[in-house]
Amino acid sequence: MKYSAIRRMAKLVQRSDIISFAAGAPSADTFPVDDIRRITASVLENDAKAALQYGLTLGYAGLIDAVVDFCQTRKGMSVAVEQVCITSGSQQALDLIGRLFLDPGDVAFVELPSYVGAIAAFRNLQAQTVGVRHANDGIDIEDLVRQIKACQQSGGRPKLVYVIPNFQNPSGITLSLEKRKTLVEVADRFGLMIVEDDPYGEVYFDVHSAGALRPIRTLDGENRVIYLSTFSKILAAGLRVGWIVAPAKIIEKIDLAKQATDLCGSMLDQRIVTECWRQGVILRHLPAIREFYRARCDAMLEALTEMMPTGVSWTKPSGGLFLWVTLPEQLDSEVLFSEAIAQQRVAYVSGQPFHVNSKGHNTLRLAFSRENEDNIRTGIHRLAGLFKSHLE
Amino acid sequence: MKYSAIRRMAKLVQRSDIISFAAGAPSADTFPVDDIRRITASVLENDAKAALQYGLTLGYAGLIDAVVDFCQTRKGMSVAVEQVCITSGSQQALDLIGRLFLDPGDVAFVELPSYVGAIAAFRNLQAQTVGVRHANDGIDIEDLVRQIKACQQSGGRPKLVYVIPNFQNPSGITLSLEKRKTLVEVADRFGLMIVEDDPYGEVYFDVHSAGALRPIRTLDGENRVIYLSTFSKILAAGLRVGWIVAPAKIIEKIDLAKQATDLCGSMLDQRIVTECWRQGVILRHLPAIREFYRARCDAMLEALTEMMPTGVSWTKPSGGLFLWVTLPEQLDSEVLFSEAIAQQRVAYVSGQPFHVNSKGHNTLRLAFSRENEDNIRTGIHRLAGLFKSHLE
Repeated sequence: MKYSAIRRMAKLVQRSDIISFAAGAPSADTFPVDDIRRITASVLENDAKAALQYGLTLGYAGLIDAVVDFCQTRKGMSVAVEQVCITSGSQQALDLIGRLFLDPGDVAFVELPSYVGAIAAFRNLQAQTVGVRHANDGIDIEDLVRQIKACQQSGGRPKLVYVIPNFQNPSGITLSLEKRKTLVEVADRFGLMIVEDDPYGEVYFDVHSAGALRPIRTLDGENRVIYLSTFSKILAAGLRVGWIVAPAKIIEKIDLAKQATDLCGSMLDQRIVTECWRQGVILRHLPAIREFYRARCDAMLEALTEMMPTGVSWTKPSGGLFLWVTLPEQLDSEVLFSEAIAQQRVAYVSGQPFHVNSKGHNTLRLAFSRENEDNIRTGIHRLAGLFKSHLE
Repeated sequence: MKYSAIRRMAKLVQRSDIISFAAGAPSADTFPVDDIRRITASVLENDAKAALQYGLTLGYAGLIDAVVDFCQTRKGMSVAVEQVCITSGSQQALDLIGRLFLDPGDVAFVELPSYVGAIAAFRNLQAQTVGVRHANDGIDIEDLVRQIKACQQSGGRPKLVYVIPNFQNPSGITLSLEKRKTLVEVADRFGLMIVEDDPYGEVYFDVHSAGALRPIRTLDGENRVIYLSTFSKILAAGLRVGWIVAPAKIIEKIDLAKQATDLCGSMLDQRIVTECWRQGVILRHLPAIREFYRARCDAMLEALTEMMPTGVSWTKPSGGLFLWVTLPEQLDSEVLFSEAIAQQRVAYVSGQPFHVNSKGHNTLRLAFSRENEDNIRTGIHRLAGLFKSHLE
C-alpha cells in the first residue's frame, strides 16, 4: 500500500460514525486555545507589520532563542543559535536533511517499522531505504551493523540511520539508553549520520521514565546527530513549526537548500509559538497533555488485555500517541481493514506501509489520540470481535 | 555572486541609515493590518481547533474555493478545484514543480534576467538553466526557439520554460499579448511545459493596461501551462500562502510530492487568507496597493530621468515592485556596490545573479517598494552621483 493510500484511508475514516484509531494527529482538545487566542491578538496588536512580513529563512530569531532554551531546559542539550533551523513542521526537516545527505541511490537505514513520512521523504529523493529489525528496546544494533556491512559489500552507499527514539511512531517503543550510546559508536565507526526524530519526547506518561529519554545527541553525538523536533504535539499541529539542531556547518547548507524551498516559514505561526514559549504556556500545559494521552493509553491497554484473543500481542508505550499490535501470522491486517470499517465501524492503519521490506502484513498501528476512553473500549471490543471471528 | 551572497547583501542593507532599493519584499505599509487582526480573532473565536490542527496537503478547501473564485473574477481563468494546490508561498510551488518536471541535467529555459529564487530552485534540483534573451516586450521568442533546438541537437533534455509575464522580477518588463500566444505555440511544438509565475499581476498602475495581462494559461494553454501566484504582494508576505493551477493529473502528483515535503501548510495562515478573500478585504485594498507602488515608481522614474547621466538607461514598468537599470558597458554594478553602500549609503542588487549566463555585469535591480518618495529621490541622486563619478 502506498503512502497516498494511507492518506486516503485516513480521510475515509474521518466519517463520524467510525471509531478511528487511524488518524495520527494529536487531539485538538490538547491545544491551549485560549492562550493562543490571547497571544495571537497581542502579536498582531504590538508588531503586526513584522509578523506579516517575510522573515529569515532559518527562522525568527526569537523562536531560535526559544528553541535553544527549550533544548537546554527540557532536553539537557546545549545548543548554539547557529545550530538551529526552524522548519515547517518536522516533515520539512526530513525533506531538507534528505536533500542534503541523500543522493539518488544512497542508503538510509530505518527501523522495521518506521514513520511513513520519513520513508516517503527519503524515497522521494530516490534514496534507498533499508529496513533494520526492531525490538522492544528499539533498533536492533546487531542487525544494523549487519545491514551496513552488507550494504558496503554490495557497493551501496550507507549515509544515515533514522530513528524515533521516544515512543516511536508507529510502534510506541522507546530506544534504551544503552542502545542510544551504542548507536553513536556504530555511526562513528561507519561514518554515518544519525537522524534523531523526537516529536513525542515530551509526551511521557511517567516522570520516572523521563530520565531514560536523553537525546542521542547528548551522548557524544554532537557531530554525528541531527536532532529534530516540533511543537505540533505539545502546542498545536496546524501551526507548522518544527526545528532542526545540527552542527553549524550543516545548518549553513540547510539555509541554502531551504531558501530555494520556501524562502521562509509562516512568520505569524513562528511569532505565536515564540510567545507561547516565552509566556510559559507550553510548560504550563505539558502536564495536562501527558495526562490526557496517558489516560487514553491506559484505557486502550486495559481493553486490549481484557478483550483480545490469545495470539494477539501489543506494545506498552510509556508515552506518545500510538501502540502497535501484532496478530497471529495467518491474519492480514490490510485484508481485515475493509471488514473493520464496513462491519465494525472501527479504523486502524495496517502495518505494511511502515515496513520498507513489505513485511508486517499481520501488524497494525492503533492511535489512542483521537477517541475518548469510552470509544476506545468500544472500538477495541469491536476489533477483538473481528480478530476472534477470523481465528476460530 | 551566489544566491546566498544576495541574501547576505539584503540583510546588510537593512541597516537603517541606508536607503535600500535592494530588498525585494512588498512594503508592510500595504498590509491591511486592522482587517487581518479582526479576521484572525474571529477565526480563532469560531473555529480554533480546526484552524490549529493538521489539514489537507493540497490546502484548506475554503481557500481552494477562494483561489478558484479569484482566478475567475480577477484573471478570467476557469479553474476546477482539482486543478489547485495551495503552497507555502510561490517559492514552494517552484520547488515542487521543479521536482516533478526536472530530473538532474534536464533543461529549464529562463529569461536573461530572471528571478533568482526560481533559478535557485531549479539548480537545487541539479537541473540545467539556459538563458534566453529578453526584450522590452518580454522573452525573445526567436532566441528561445534557437536555444531549444541547440539543446536538442546537443542531446539535452528541454523540459520547461519559466516566465514571469507581468512586471517581471527583476526587470519590471511585461510580456506582450502577442508573445504570450506565440509562447504557447512554441511550447506545443517542442513539447515543453510553461511555468507562468504571476506574483505581481494585480499590482498594475494603469487600469487600461490590465487587459493586456491575460494569463498565458487562458490562451489555449490549459494543458501546457502551470500557473503560479501568491497572496504575498496583495495581502501579506509573512502569511505564506501561494498557489499552483495545473492540470488535475499534475496536481495529483504534486499532492504526493508535497506530502513528503511538509504534510500541509500553515492552517492558520490559510484560514486568515480565506476570510480576507470572502469578506472582500483583498479586493477592497487592491486599489490602494496599486496607487502606493505607482506613486513610488513614478517618483523613481522621474528622479532617474532628471538625474542619471547619459548612457544609463532603465525600464518603465507599468506595475510591480522593480525596475531595471543598464549602465554603460565599462561599469560593473557589483564592483560599484561597495562604494554605493560605504560612501553613498544606498543599496541595490547587482544584475549578474539574475543572469544564468553570468552576463549582466553592467545591470542592476532597483526596488521601489521599500523607500518613500523622498528617500527615492535622495537615493537616486546619490546613485546618479556615483555613476557620474565613474563616467567622467
